[in-house]
Amino acid sequence: MSSSSESSSNSFSAEKYFATQPPPSTLEQDVSRVREFVDRQVAEGRKVVLVTSGGTTVPLELNVVRFLDNFSAGTRGATSAEYFLKAGYAVIFMHRQFSLQPFSRHYSHSTHPFLDFLDIDPTDTDGHKISVTRAEQAQLLNVLTTYKEVHQTGALHTLTFVTVNDYLWMLRAVSKELSILGRNSLFYLAAAVSDFFLPRQKMSEHKIQSGKGSLHIEMDQVPKILKPLVNEWTREGFIVSFKLETDPDLLTPKSRTALSRYGHQVVIGNDLHRRKFEVLFVSPASSSKPLDDQRPGDFVETWIRIDLAKDPSKEIEEDIVAELVKRHDAWIREAKTP
Amino acid sequence: MSSSSESSSNSFSAEKYFATQPPPSTLEQDVSRVREFVDRQVAEGRKVVLVTSGGTTVPLELNVVRFLDNFSAGTRGATSAEYFLKAGYAVIFMHRQFSLQPFSRHYSHSTHPFLDFLDIDPTDTDGHKISVTRAEQAQLLNVLTTYKEVHQTGALHTLTFVTVNDYLWMLRAVSKELSILGRNSLFYLAAAVSDFFLPRQKMSEHKIQSGKGSLHIEMDQVPKILKPLVNEWTREGFIVSFKLETDPDLLTPKSRTALSRYGHQVVIGNDLHRRKFEVLFVSPASSSKPLDDQRPGDFVETWIRIDLAKDPSKEIEEDIVAELVKRHDAWIREAKTP
Repeated sequence: MSSSSESSSNSFSAEKYFATQPPPSTLEQDVSRVREFVDRQVAEGRKVVLVTSGGTTVPLELNVVRFLDNFSAGTRGATSAEYFLKAGYAVIFMHRQFSLQPFSRHYSHSTHPFLDFLDIDPTDTDGHKISVTRAEQAQLLNVLTTYKEVHQTGALHTLTFVTVNDYLWMLRAVSKELSILGRNSLFYLAAAVSDFFLPRQKMSEHKIQSGKGSLHIEMDQVPKILKPLVNEWTREGFIVSFKLETDPDLLTPKSRTALSRYGHQVVIGNDLHRRKFEVLFVSPASSSKPLDDQRPGDFVETWIRIDLAKDPSKEIEEDIVAELVKRHDAWIREAKTP
Repeated sequence: MSSSSESSSNSFSAEKYFATQPPPSTLEQDVSRVREFVDRQVAEGRKVVLVTSGGTTVPLELNVVRFLDNFSAGTRGATSAEYFLKAGYAVIFMHRQFSLQPFSRHYSHSTHPFLDFLDIDPTDTDGHKISVTRAEQAQLLNVLTTYKEVHQTGALHTLTFVTVNDYLWMLRAVSKELSILGRNSLFYLAAAVSDFFLPRQKMSEHKIQSGKGSLHIEMDQVPKILKPLVNEWTREGFIVSFKLETDPDLLTPKSRTALSRYGHQVVIGNDLHRRKFEVLFVSPASSSKPLDDQRPGDFVETWIRIDLAKDPSKEIEEDIVAELVKRHDAWIREAKTP
């Protein structure tokens, strides 16, 4: 397996991508709901964050049996969404189908199944036969109370994608809807998006038959979507992207490169094995200076670390979100001062 | 993308596979728990079914960020497991991490989230502040009662896999443990197992870097595991395998070929788009005749169909399991008559 240099036919600009790949069938409906949601937030003066979460698939067949995927349970996104809600943001939670979601993430069917903490009371005859075990009451009451508040205030809107194609079309459409918010919008792009895809035109219709030897897959590069996002779709949104690496030596340089290339506000670098307790914020030293001119010293780099040995229930997303809210507020104030 | 003829270096026999690919680290522990479970069922005279469920992954990197996957939410396996339990079987539910599980499958966080049907009663002061909404009481009471019974009787044992390598090692080990049951064991192989894999020796250590053009993946064929399962690991178990196709024209011939090749008891053919209401049972016309000699007419083919328009809550797995229980019982009786 390799990633190799190729002719330009395999390199899709965002423009070429959207001109040749079909939009998901539910896109228009999804967008009109986002529009209503955003309008309500504008009326109420709320800041809005778009949280993307989970992996994307690359189907190998039109009648999809097999697909390439990116590892992500969606923990970062689902957890962060809760802290953004707590901080008063309205949240558009755009996530991979079946990845973790805010609130219900505390009750994974695998690790903390809710059926385990429900009791049946045979003596109760008024129809409330099922109750919650004492040990789980406090946490569930806490989660449930917030869940109900969020639904009552209409502060959370959920969108679902599966393929990288769904994701790209949806991100473009939603970011355009958010542009009405100006600097009051934040993009928190935590989804693990595939770097490669198989153009519709190259997909086989039916399940690829085995039994004939080995499987060869050749994929094209997904367009670098941050470029049009920063330059065209939203010019004032505060944009936070993520860089996941497994080689610690690559974390800092790859995060810097991403920031230099797209010129947005923050890259959060995280190492696959340390991401639960340590992340790196990379941002430009000065937002007024063109990024092309910046040398390594022109980056501001901040590590956020938590001590899980001391506080095992602490979630690093709490500190990540607190830091971003601070920076986003400064970004909003900056626009108001002449 | 293509599946092409290859030299023998890409063709792994099961023997070569297990000699060159490392076992999952938790295998021994998993197997000793299965042994205890099986011993208990032998003592209680219960039949045991191994249900495999969900897709398998093929990681592209040792520090896995990307992987190939097979489409499967695990509905077939999770639903069937419930009906096998109802029919008095002990069930080993060997499933892909995060795929659907028996009982909790009724409360998917995406389509039927349990937080939506819990109410908070502000007047209740005795600690039972959370109750179940009236509309959900009946179904939940039903599911919960069965769930608790199954746990009390110890009739369900759950195993988890992620990669195709986990799956292959686990299937081999569990099937050997089941051989003590003789004809009282049933194999219900509903998992969507990858036909291709990347040998450990060919995997890159870290995340494959993009930015250099297109991605080329070349995978080897997974050994046909049914062969040693039928011929070596379990000689008396009743074996049911599944064949998923998207091209309706291939369903019957591919199911027949699978049965002829491995000589087991039943192949259940299902079409991706019709699998919720229609499946095809293919079995040998006579179990005493060597399968090599059989012509097309030597297969017994039975369609199982349900009418979802008439009864939308009917699950086809109910009829699949009922038919298999009948055939398995006949298979057990056959061994006892001289």
